[in-house]
Amino acid sequence: MFISKLRRVLIGSPLASSHSHNQLIPKWKALAVLSSDALSSTAYATEEIIIPLALSGVYLATMWSLPVALGILALMIIITISYRQTIVAYPNGGGAYIVAKENLGNGAGLVAAAALMLDYILTVSVSVSAGVENLISAFPQLASVQVFFCVWIILIIMILSLRGISESATIFAIPTYLFIFSMLSLIVVGIIRGPIEGHVAMEVVSTHLPEIGIILLLRAFSSGCTALTGIEAISNGIPLFKHPQSKNANRTLVSMVVILGILFAGITYLVNQFGLTHIEGQTLISSLSKSVFGDGYFYYVVQASTALILFLAASTSYADFPRLASLLAKDRYAPRQLASIGDRLVFSNGVIGLTICSIFLVILFGGRTHYLIPLYAVGVFLSFTLSQAGMVVHHYRLREKKWVSSLIINLTGAITTAVVLVVIASFKFTHGAWMVIVLIPIIVYTFHRIHVHYVMFSRELSQSHYLIDKCEKMTNHVVVIPISGLHLGVMNAIRYGQSIGNDLRVCYVKVGDVEGRERLQDQWKEKFPDIELHILESPYRSISEPILDFINKISKEHPAEFITVIFPEFLTAKWYHQLLHNQTAWLIKLSLIYKKNVIVTSVKYHLKTT
Amino acid sequence: MFISKLRRVLIGSPLASSHSHNQLIPKWKALAVLSSDALSSTAYATEEIIIPLALSGVYLATMWSLPVALGILALMIIITISYRQTIVAYPNGGGAYIVAKENLGNGAGLVAAAALMLDYILTVSVSVSAGVENLISAFPQLASVQVFFCVWIILIIMILSLRGISESATIFAIPTYLFIFSMLSLIVVGIIRGPIEGHVAMEVVSTHLPEIGIILLLRAFSSGCTALTGIEAISNGIPLFKHPQSKNANRTLVSMVVILGILFAGITYLVNQFGLTHIEGQTLISSLSKSVFGDGYFYYVVQASTALILFLAASTSYADFPRLASLLAKDRYAPRQLASIGDRLVFSNGVIGLTICSIFLVILFGGRTHYLIPLYAVGVFLSFTLSQAGMVVHHYRLREKKWVSSLIINLTGAITTAVVLVVIASFKFTHGAWMVIVLIPIIVYTFHRIHVHYVMFSRELSQSHYLIDKCEKMTNHVVVIPISGLHLGVMNAIRYGQSIGNDLRVCYVKVGDVEGRERLQDQWKEKFPDIELHILESPYRSISEPILDFINKISKEHPAEFITVIFPEFLTAKWYHQLLHNQTAWLIKLSLIYKKNVIVTSVKYHLKTT
Repeated sequence: MFISKLRRVLIGSPLASSHSHNQLIPKWKALAVLSSDALSSTAYATEEIIIPLALSGVYLATMWSLPVALGILALMIIITISYRQTIVAYPNGGGAYIVAKENLGNGAGLVAAAALMLDYILTVSVSVSAGVENLISAFPQLASVQVFFCVWIILIIMILSLRGISESATIFAIPTYLFIFSMLSLIVVGIIRGPIEGHVAMEVVSTHLPEIGIILLLRAFSSGCTALTGIEAISNGIPLFKHPQSKNANRTLVSMVVILGILFAGITYLVNQFGLTHIEGQTLISSLSKSVFGDGYFYYVVQASTALILFLAASTSYADFPRLASLLAKDRYAPRQLASIGDRLVFSNGVIGLTICSIFLVILFGGRTHYLIPLYAVGVFLSFTLSQAGMVVHHYRLREKKWVSSLIINLTGAITTAVVLVVIASFKFTHGAWMVIVLIPIIVYTFHRIHVHYVMFSRELSQSHYLIDKCEKMTNHVVVIPISGLHLGVMNAIRYGQSIGNDLRVCYVKVGDVEGRERLQDQWKEKFPDIELHILESPYRSISEPILDFINKISKEHPAEFITVIFPEFLTAKWYHQLLHNQTAWLIKLSLIYKKNVIVTSVKYHLKTT
Repeated sequence: MFISKLRRVLIGSPLASSHSHNQLIPKWKALAVLSSDALSSTAYATEEIIIPLALSGVYLATMWSLPVALGILALMIIITISYRQTIVAYPNGGGAYIVAKENLGNGAGLVAAAALMLDYILTVSVSVSAGVENLISAFPQLASVQVFFCVWIILIIMILSLRGISESATIFAIPTYLFIFSMLSLIVVGIIRGPIEGHVAMEVVSTHLPEIGIILLLRAFSSGCTALTGIEAISNGIPLFKHPQSKNANRTLVSMVVILGILFAGITYLVNQFGLTHIEGQTLISSLSKSVFGDGYFYYVVQASTALILFLAASTSYADFPRLASLLAKDRYAPRQLASIGDRLVFSNGVIGLTICSIFLVILFGGRTHYLIPLYAVGVFLSFTLSQAGMVVHHYRLREKKWVSSLIINLTGAITTAVVLVVIASFKFTHGAWMVIVLIPIIVYTFHRIHVHYVMFSRELSQSHYLIDKCEKMTNHVVVIPISGLHLGVMNAIRYGQSIGNDLRVCYVKVGDVEGRERLQDQWKEKFPDIELHILESPYRSISEPILDFINKISKEHPAEFITVIFPEFLTAKWYHQLLHNQTAWLIKLSLIYKKNVIVTSVKYHLKTT
């Protein structure tokens, strides 16, 4: 079939279950896959600090971006030290869900899971939007198709993810290192040489910071905290690492944070020095890169590598979201389809679900990063807080070697992230954070309801087993065949109907066209003299309702019997021609789904017409 | 059922066929429904002239907008006079499709139809986008949800259209007249009082027009021709009018064009006088209205009425698109579902198709009017040209009273619009017109293929009738039942299977879980000692493929027989719980669609679990 062929080309041939262990990857590849989320946030974090400051009206306020960035760097160090403990304690992958569930109970685990899921979805939307904005900064003629462009990029990332993570890592390792290289070049050249002529936006006349309100500062700080998104990715992804997994993961975490800190501090410092600010249609990275490299080819290298690392960041979520969804599904908190591993050893349904949600957000916000950011940080810091709090309880419960110092580290982490969470939720509430605050309880409640359903379902099923008796044959049942004309398809249906039952009721709905009906009745008498043709009236031109009424009437007459409804259907030689034929039968089938004892089937007539 | 209830609330109860004639509407209502497309284009036409002129770099170039607008007004008069002839000649509705088909042949008719369909879709996308942009100009905090806002508006218009056109007209008449009133107020107050203090954008120092290139002028002219979209709506909508239909329609056409001309000329004149130009995030109407009324409440009246007439313009297409689609379907050039009138006497499928296409365009271009405009005018002028050319042939063929003067009028119309068409197609080619130029032949070819399919289909069907023989009962057939466990649902399926055939094959796919399989086999032997349970292997964890192989094998053994495949399915008490259960059966059914002699059915087991 066409679809399965397409599937093979895009996603690859199936892999046997035994192939599973080969998918472990070395540190340098893991850095490429798992750090991209954190590193790529340097592409927009500085800009997000600048925007609220610049809106204050006091132009010099943007000079405060440097102190704000320093505060965020301090937070970064606290969180990293805290997460190192998690990696050691949970070598099989210490996602916030697992840590919170094990130590704080199911409720906290589900809250963490809801926060993480939103977080992963937003990572895709934000990263892809930001990447596309960076490309549009370099090629403004693409601006007209911004949203469409974002959607295509998400679909491409989806396909790469469905092929399996290791192959994606190989494809994506180069861009990560290219990004680190081009950003470092930008920072070093920028510091040494300064902006090229005609590219100083503002002469910095004073070294004194202007007076500024605390609310404005906290708002800038809240926005800038997006720089910290993705730090937790490594602790979720430990099972991807080669052995010894915890040690490799921890080393990778430290390398990542050092690079992240240098890039974030360097970019913010240069933006400050050059007096750059937010411009419509130009990302701050693009403005900065233009100031340093002009319109030379290295400017395009910077923009391309920034876009690529952002797309790579989106793929981080494609590793983590389906894994979390499958954990939830195995614990019966999510639809069980999310637990089944596909034929490329990837949780395909989770991948598709993530794609749908992130495309929805991109469309909703027109692919504009700045509108998406306020939704982003709440989920991240909620999961940080729950994860660190869980670690505190973990240390207290197990009391391993040096447990007191470990507990103090995680307690510091938990309190710090909790305070930041409250700050973000308050100062970004009206900018979109409210959506996340509303959504999380709804998602948690949904998890709960799903769980209740599955528990009751398996109880009903295991009990139903005792009700199975010796099988008795049915004595008879009614077969209903709705027809719309007389042709070979109808004959097939009647032939089949007569063989499976002995009580046949054929019916025809009268809509307009008196002549056609009379001709049909004459032909019917000639071909099937033994079978009565029931003619049904339809005042509202509906085909389905008279047929449903007819079936209901039979159902009332024979309450205990099975009723089989057979639809004679055309099957066109080419599948897309099927769209040219009436789908009435399909609508009737849909209406019959909930009728007990009614069994619906179609007998197909294969058309030769192409 | 929930869906049918929702449907009644949104769309209303069914109307009987006899209700049909009541839907005719008086002139003042018809003006509201049919003129809104043309009138609303004044909301963006001037801006579209200004944008290419302003981009030229010479700021004074925008002063050329007035001469360009005068050229467009002249064109407007030519087209109107030409269309008056069409209304008289085609009192049953002289859409470009009908006129071109009758006079120039099927090919030209289909080209006109393709152009019109694109045109209607773009009317919805452009009008809704422009309406939302005008609301965002007044309420900038809505900017983050621009695309989503557009989508909602389209869905609301769709629902109003599904209720039927007369009710919509009543709802919408007020905004049309409010728009005319508020625009006239804006123009009169603007001319008499001039801009309020601090709102003159540019002091007009010179009364001489600056030198300007002809290409720039033609580009501005091409963009401004969007002012003419919608003039043809009245000639398509004649059957909506009360009798005498042609006379009423022609009077309405003249009233409409007079209003249109005054609004377009007035707005362009004021924009010129005030030296306004295009600003990001502000429509030109909004800038103009702010210049005249400041931030007073009348500014909001102008913005709201502009948005409303634009949304109303979108609803024009909701009257015309489904009608054209049903004409095509009756001529067997479009899927026959488009021909069937719904239970509210509206062509529901056409309405839904239009909604899907226009939402796609809005998303593709991020709801930004300026990006959509270049696609718009090509289709409009192509249908103008074909319609006028058709009228020329019409006069020549029939030679009615005064046919020579009529012929000359339409010939002038045809030549003028053809020249404009070539200008637009060339000067807007790279801005998006190419998409339309590519799409039209594709659509026409699709119409043609659909026609061929239907013709061959009805030939095959009418011949198949002679092949119906005396019905013979089938001697026996194979029943296949795939199971995934042992429960009451399986028992029902086996009970049904035994009653419809005597050769039962039950199968189970082995994926992991050895224990579960052994327990199942033991239970099976106990409950169904007479029926063999076939265990199928699955190396790639697929459930569907082993079952398909099993069916294929049986099919090869018994090539001439029917094979019935019965799936025991759970049916949850609440429909949305269905999503929590595996949809494997559904996938298998899909794969079996094209297998001849295989009949697929499900026996449902109704769960009590909620």
